[in-house]
Amino acid sequence: MSSRSRHKEGEFTFLRKLLARVPTGRGVVVGPGHDAARVRAGAKDWLLTVDSQVEGVHFQRAWLSLSALGRRSFRVAASDIAAMGGRARFVLVDCGVPERLPLASLQRIELGLVEEAQAWGAWVVGGNLHRSVELALSVTVVAEAPRRRVDRGAARPGELVAVTGNFGDAALCVHLLRSRRPCPPGLLRRWQMPPRLDRLGRMLVEGGLPSAMIDVSDGLVQDLQHVCEVSGVGAELNAASVPRSQAYRRLVGDDLTFALSGGEDYELLFTVPAKRLEAVRQLARREGVALTVIGRVVRGHRVVVEQQGRELHLQRFGFDHFAG
Amino acid sequence: MSSRSRHKEGEFTFLRKLLARVPTGRGVVVGPGHDAARVRAGAKDWLLTVDSQVEGVHFQRAWLSLSALGRRSFRVAASDIAAMGGRARFVLVDCGVPERLPLASLQRIELGLVEEAQAWGAWVVGGNLHRSVELALSVTVVAEAPRRRVDRGAARPGELVAVTGNFGDAALCVHLLRSRRPCPPGLLRRWQMPPRLDRLGRMLVEGGLPSAMIDVSDGLVQDLQHVCEVSGVGAELNAASVPRSQAYRRLVGDDLTFALSGGEDYELLFTVPAKRLEAVRQLARREGVALTVIGRVVRGHRVVVEQQGRELHLQRFGFDHFAG
Repeated sequence: MSSRSRHKEGEFTFLRKLLARVPTGRGVVVGPGHDAARVRAGAKDWLLTVDSQVEGVHFQRAWLSLSALGRRSFRVAASDIAAMGGRARFVLVDCGVPERLPLASLQRIELGLVEEAQAWGAWVVGGNLHRSVELALSVTVVAEAPRRRVDRGAARPGELVAVTGNFGDAALCVHLLRSRRPCPPGLLRRWQMPPRLDRLGRMLVEGGLPSAMIDVSDGLVQDLQHVCEVSGVGAELNAASVPRSQAYRRLVGDDLTFALSGGEDYELLFTVPAKRLEAVRQLARREGVALTVIGRVVRGHRVVVEQQGRELHLQRFGFDHFAG
Repeated sequence: MSSRSRHKEGEFTFLRKLLARVPTGRGVVVGPGHDAARVRAGAKDWLLTVDSQVEGVHFQRAWLSLSALGRRSFRVAASDIAAMGGRARFVLVDCGVPERLPLASLQRIELGLVEEAQAWGAWVVGGNLHRSVELALSVTVVAEAPRRRVDRGAARPGELVAVTGNFGDAALCVHLLRSRRPCPPGLLRRWQMPPRLDRLGRMLVEGGLPSAMIDVSDGLVQDLQHVCEVSGVGAELNAASVPRSQAYRRLVGDDLTFALSGGEDYELLFTVPAKRLEAVRQLARREGVALTVIGRVVRGHRVVVEQQGRELHLQRFGFDHFAG
């Protein structure tokens, strides 16, 4: 349930707000505007989300195998569920099929998706096929909600901002592929296969540890801004502390553009009171997930990104130093 | 959860079978291959379905208002739920947005969809926006399942085959629009707004009346064939008894092509033991829905379509008289 950051962000922000205003009622615990909706079904709550992968927008076929496309499509959609602490259970796939696509190709995509879902404990229970110009996969995930609730709107001043994993690899990879430059295999795999963070997400939520959580799909700063906006707070982000891979540093040095605003990282970003940080660290260690504190929540409404004592300013398509 | 009949039916049949073979497990009561999946969520069962409307494939923008497009997108998806006797509750919308589409247009589509869902007692709880070449709406509906179950696989020889409403109007309308010929307003409205049959569908299922039921999206004969195939039976269909509107008869006389194989009727087709027919008639009358018996279930595996004592034979893109 994210917009794609590459395309006229203002429009999508407007539309996200539009969608967040639609009326909801009985049974809707968390409505539009979050990673996933939370609905009441009998005694239990369920999470619902949809996300899509469209050829030419999110991927080119040369960038990954058909099976990997199926797997990636599931992981991208399931990332929203991980950020709400859910357990993916049922999957629907709506597939737009270009005329020229061989049957065997569709079968390979389908099998990749089915296998990936199964590995997460989820079943593909139905789907729909239709013609389209672009190969397009729209994946709906239905998940068991955790008993506790976490969303984007409860960050409080004084709390820490923490993230899992590294940032910028996926966006840098796409940038290289689009400009037809060689992309190291490690970066490519990182883009092809978003991280699996559902177990950690669930343990964090069930443990009542984060105050707010989101999966970073649109870009680290933008998604942090979204959390701040909904929570009515600001944040200070220490740019140098944003975790980046060796491959990233080797390719772009200290350039933080892709790490801060590239998007498609599908890592978890959350706010947490300092006293609960050690408990979070223990869970992350047990899951083998890297955890980094990158800033803190402050009063106000701005996300201030600092590097070497200076404030970085967001440009339309990325970050740039503010000439001091 | 239907393929679209206009496009290489053989392929989609193959793929539907592929999808029907994917493994399913815990919590899956009815898996792939039906109008909607049925899953167990706590003490309750829920129905899940997805369907889509894609510009250039299912519609042209000149054919309906943006609000009507939103409404139609919901009705098409909710039709699968009606055929399983469910009560639509929650809706997710994945929307592919062309660059040139004005914001206000997307807002009108969204509002049409939200209003239509509300009229059915359902809430739009989330969505996703992405760029695409074609305007595309993929609608997921989550519905409360009825206590009883009905699906496509329990038709038995000797039972009657019955349908709601009229057939062929929508397909004839699309044929006229595509060939740039005038389309009577009545036919156009019929295509724009598929019938609402959720209340009748639910009462039929809760009353334990039909043995098998399906919504007719791919064409009357094809969907009947599907019911027969899954049930391991055949059927005799009396072509002359297939209900058609006055507008349809005025335009194409006794030509049954669109009525038998056009598709997009979104009427209910079901099999029912003769002794339960009167109860079905009473429910339909109460709902103001026309009901017609068009044939009967027989042993075997073929659907035989008879007209004036002759058998009609299905051609690739429609029906034709078998020269006797």
